[in-house]
Amino acid sequence: MAIDINSILSDNARNMRRSPVRGLLSRANASQLISFAGGFPNQETFRVDDLKEIVREVLENDAATALQYGPTEGNLKLRMLLAERYKAMGLVDITYENVIITTASQQALDLCSRIFLNPDDTLICGLPSYLGALQSFWACSAEPVGVRECDYMEEIVKKLISAGKKPKFIYTIPDFSNPSGLTLTLEQRRQLIAIAFKYDLLVIEDSPYRELRFDGEELPLIASLDSERVILTGTFSKTFVPGFRLGWVIAPINIIDKLVVAKQSADLCSSVFDQALVVKYMERGLFEANIRSNINYYRKRRDKMLSLFDKYMPEGVSWTKPEGGLFLFVTLPEKCDAMELFNICLDRNLAFVAGEIFHCDGSGKNTLRINYSYVDESKMEQGVQILSDSIKLRRSPYA
Amino acid sequence: MAIDINSILSDNARNMRRSPVRGLLSRANASQLISFAGGFPNQETFRVDDLKEIVREVLENDAATALQYGPTEGNLKLRMLLAERYKAMGLVDITYENVIITTASQQALDLCSRIFLNPDDTLICGLPSYLGALQSFWACSAEPVGVRECDYMEEIVKKLISAGKKPKFIYTIPDFSNPSGLTLTLEQRRQLIAIAFKYDLLVIEDSPYRELRFDGEELPLIASLDSERVILTGTFSKTFVPGFRLGWVIAPINIIDKLVVAKQSADLCSSVFDQALVVKYMERGLFEANIRSNINYYRKRRDKMLSLFDKYMPEGVSWTKPEGGLFLFVTLPEKCDAMELFNICLDRNLAFVAGEIFHCDGSGKNTLRINYSYVDESKMEQGVQILSDSIKLRRSPYA
Repeated sequence: MAIDINSILSDNARNMRRSPVRGLLSRANASQLISFAGGFPNQETFRVDDLKEIVREVLENDAATALQYGPTEGNLKLRMLLAERYKAMGLVDITYENVIITTASQQALDLCSRIFLNPDDTLICGLPSYLGALQSFWACSAEPVGVRECDYMEEIVKKLISAGKKPKFIYTIPDFSNPSGLTLTLEQRRQLIAIAFKYDLLVIEDSPYRELRFDGEELPLIASLDSERVILTGTFSKTFVPGFRLGWVIAPINIIDKLVVAKQSADLCSSVFDQALVVKYMERGLFEANIRSNINYYRKRRDKMLSLFDKYMPEGVSWTKPEGGLFLFVTLPEKCDAMELFNICLDRNLAFVAGEIFHCDGSGKNTLRINYSYVDESKMEQGVQILSDSIKLRRSPYA
Repeated sequence: MAIDINSILSDNARNMRRSPVRGLLSRANASQLISFAGGFPNQETFRVDDLKEIVREVLENDAATALQYGPTEGNLKLRMLLAERYKAMGLVDITYENVIITTASQQALDLCSRIFLNPDDTLICGLPSYLGALQSFWACSAEPVGVRECDYMEEIVKKLISAGKKPKFIYTIPDFSNPSGLTLTLEQRRQLIAIAFKYDLLVIEDSPYRELRFDGEELPLIASLDSERVILTGTFSKTFVPGFRLGWVIAPINIIDKLVVAKQSADLCSSVFDQALVVKYMERGLFEANIRSNINYYRKRRDKMLSLFDKYMPEGVSWTKPEGGLFLFVTLPEKCDAMELFNICLDRNLAFVAGEIFHCDGSGKNTLRINYSYVDESKMEQGVQILSDSIKLRRSPYA
């Protein structure tokens, strides 16, 4: 007789939420699908020939170490290389001791959640916000509280504190956010850190896209404004390859120390082999070169997607104009349900992500996220046309 | 002003325990150290030339997929290959749907802990038991309850149930356990599953060493005795390479489903690149060939370590005679403290792991774990001599 699993699940397991994206997409015919859905980088940006050479070298000279267990904190050289990079990006006091390598930034967010969040704890996040981050908060049975605009943040923090629910941290993606594509202004960054300082809050600065800036002025890392209270997370997934599953956390040493203990029981260490490959890749200067070519590659796609939106989108639809990253975010007329639109589009082999899942308060039903990095470029126009036609179709009952 | 981290840690973070091994070893002079400490496989078993060929092929033919994001459940071919292997090992009804790929078996244990364990929940484990498993239980603020011998298990389960603390599962490493080196007999396996059935408990069968059997008869997987209530975990760390950080869980589909949701927020997926390499490695039959040669390799080392123990150990010291795996477990005379012995030995450049940390009840102070897989074979004898001399030295005050 099978055991009744549901009766013995942990409370956290009951609060975990499945990413709805995969299930929905299983309906689609993969080979014909035009996908504006995932946040995948394009495989055309993968430097396969360089990698072949690097793997050969690592296996030739360093196999005994690269295939063995490694330190929980991560490859020492990799930590030093990242510290150097961030020093050049304005984190003046950083050393390798402020760096831990994680199984991509998803684990960075998960470990941060686990060391800070008790059940029912609150934290501040955006409306919308990165789904994977919300999932890691829910997996700790915490309660993310969404803030639509920075201007309302202090008011919400104050309310939470006076209700005895002081937030544990502010979670933000300041550069070309997933899913919104928006970037916090310098003023907003200062405002955010001032609130964090005033109410003694931590900040988690999730920074997977920062290096993919196409135009506009580079703005300071929030971590550079107050290194003592900011936890910075990053990843190689968007600037190198996602298949290695490597990311990092930059934080004060006492926080890194807690993350190391949490990571010991989570997975001991991240792929030691893949870390060795990344070290070699960075040491050869290929990382910086690749970022530069990725910027050019994705800028063209962003430009194309924006011009197609200009050309095809019906009145009443608005969208963000990202200065970098992989997404733009679309707002439909208020009564237009993006989930219904998704079903219509999927029957026509177009996928995107309906925006509701990025909103921890259940709002955003008339929003959707468009990814322009992954789709076959020759199918972009057809995809935007399907989207546009479907919106018009969907709107007609209200016309 | 720095934020007071300690005041905002989660309860789970407060209950997490650091592995003491690393800190202790940092005192040692690494280049001269004779290490009987870690559970590392020997790099001489790594098939580097085969890997070079495989990597070349994967990057030649499959780079776009192997470097991209992959499914949370893991590489489909890898799941199918593992299902086939376990079918041949007696799990008759298994399909790929019963398999999830994890970031090595440490993550397998961590995800199982997270989906089942609430704070203060109990579970049954061995005395001694694998430290990494205990760490994952503590990271959920759960209370592992140690059972020294299978014969006492039912009594302890009954006591816990009547105290309203019914254990969530029984955790066991039935084959060549870490750290004890012991193997459950067929009778003990049946007894364990009978208790699980009678009291409706899950069993976690942690099985990292099973394939490294040197002699004696192969015993059935506990999972083959009752597939409905057993969660089986495994890893490529001891039979291939640990640096890839790849393992798996075999379980009923409804449990796999919960693990998938937990893994989405934990790290999205494990290294897609390393999974592609393992698939190619298995498809070529190299995996089975490598296991056979590993068995021969480690059998010689076990034999040598046992003969050195016979030759050098003073009276009053006993140790287990493992039929496989990487460890033997030593019991010193009752008043002899293994931690003190460790300090003496480390000054003489010999490391092992004092056994107390494997005992969730704080017992085992006169025990220690000896690993024979990693140490330079030419230094084994010197290491055992240092150990023996130090035990004699340590005992003299009581003589």
